Amino acid sequence: MFTTRTPRVVAARRLRRRRERDATGRFLAEGPQAVREALRAARVRELFVTEAAAAHYPDLAADGSPITEDGLAALAETVQPQGIVAVCEAVDVPLAGAFTNNPRLVAVLAGIRDPGNAGTVLRTADAAGAATVVFAGDAVDPYNGKCVRASAGSLFHVDVVRERAPAAVVAAARAAGLAVLAATGHGDADLEALADAGALTAPTAWLFGSEAHGLPEHLLAAADRTVRVPIHGRAESLNLAAAAAVCLYS
Amino acid sequence: MFTTRTPRVVAARRLRRRRERDATGRFLAEGPQAVREALRAARVRELFVTEAAAAHYPDLAADGSPITEDGLAALAETVQPQGIVAVCEAVDVPLAGAFTNNPRLVAVLAGIRDPGNAGTVLRTADAAGAATVVFAGDAVDPYNGKCVRASAGSLFHVDVVRERAPAAVVAAARAAGLAVLAATGHGDADLEALADAGALTAPTAWLFGSEAHGLPEHLLAAADRTVRVPIHGRAESLNLAAAAAVCLYS
Repeated sequence: MFTTRTPRVVAARRLRRRRERDATGRFLAEGPQAVREALRAARVRELFVTEAAAAHYPDLAADGSPITEDGLAALAETVQPQGIVAVCEAVDVPLAGAFTNNPRLVAVLAGIRDPGNAGTVLRTADAAGAATVVFAGDAVDPYNGKCVRASAGSLFHVDVVRERAPAAVVAAARAAGLAVLAATGHGDADLEALADAGALTAPTAWLFGSEAHGLPEHLLAAADRTVRVPIHGRAESLNLAAAAAVCLYS
Repeated sequence: MFTTRTPRVVAARRLRRRRERDATGRFLAEGPQAVREALRAARVRELFVTEAAAAHYPDLAADGSPITEDGLAALAETVQPQGIVAVCEAVDVPLAGAFTNNPRLVAVLAGIRDPGNAGTVLRTADAAGAATVVFAGDAVDPYNGKCVRASAGSLFHVDVVRERAPAAVVAAARAAGLAVLAATGHGDADLEALADAGALTAPTAWLFGSEAHGLPEHLLAAADRTVRVPIHGRAESLNLAAAAAVCLYS
């Protein structure tokens, strides 16, 4: 039975740090839902399962290494990791590769630092049918534990891209024939008016900025249009996850 | 200068507990945005402001009581409360009263326990133009600090109702002429198909359940329709805030 001191557990635990993830190209996925999606995507390199979880999820545990509760707790970031943690291989693809399949819907997270927000938008983009999600500029590491959890498995469903230069993403999207729309509270165009005019049926890349800082000027300028979700009531704005959901489903 | 030991500060600090909020009909709002909205709504009973915040927000601080940094920290729940906390009077109205103005859009949070989710849906409902938001059944206290913060001031914009019996909410909505739609991942009707058919233009009350448990059977049965947000990709579901945003904006 593996414990907190087993070398493979010690090595896996280091993946809680971004530096180690960047150096190894591996990351952790915890809980049955994420592990199931990782297995389907054939991204699992190593799987740790407690005795209790093995009884509960026999389908997942078949190729797992048995680990003590303490050992699992050392790997997991949540209080209730449900007894199962996988070491996965990075899923991201190069920017160029993500546009060769002619995606009709792409979400670009430009400088979104909050891992929960980023993971939620990734999940929403998957649900809305996006083929590609780009973590651009100074965005959070998509393999951050909280981001992986918030994505609820969607990290393994879409083409994930990491690209330091947001301008390169805009260029690649445009070259692939996508309209580039920047979502911002002060956008020139009203989302509902665009939808009513049928202007959102073309393949589209949506740019989303952080809740704290929004999109930088140069990206607003680079987009084909800046678009606002209309505020019908007295709220000052929508939070990022809600605004992204409304845009991606429009 | 008020401190942690000043009786009024001690009394205000007790409002961090639900029992005290229920007993007094008062609650705390922290940070300049919430306090500004509370002042506009004339709900502020007492206002505590640090010296630094008074310099920063002179418009808000005019009628505030000066308080030490320690005193403010004892009242605030966030790490960076921005130096300003108000004791507010409860804003909720009776169920009957909320339907006399013929609201065209109502959000019902049925048994939503997570304060961040509830506050976010409240904010989204306000943005989408909802006149009324009902905290129904075993839902979180709308005056929970995290819910107040997530609502970003919207708590003071809409008619907030607290009603233990969700069935009474459905009856009141129907009596007021609203269509009652239950949002659920397994709904019979597809949201986009309903919208395309023009079926969402009538006044509507949306029922939302908790992310963990969804809506209870008796509420699904009580609704005019059960409605699902379509999943175009491979995500299993949307999170509550995203699903509510898409429904309320449809």
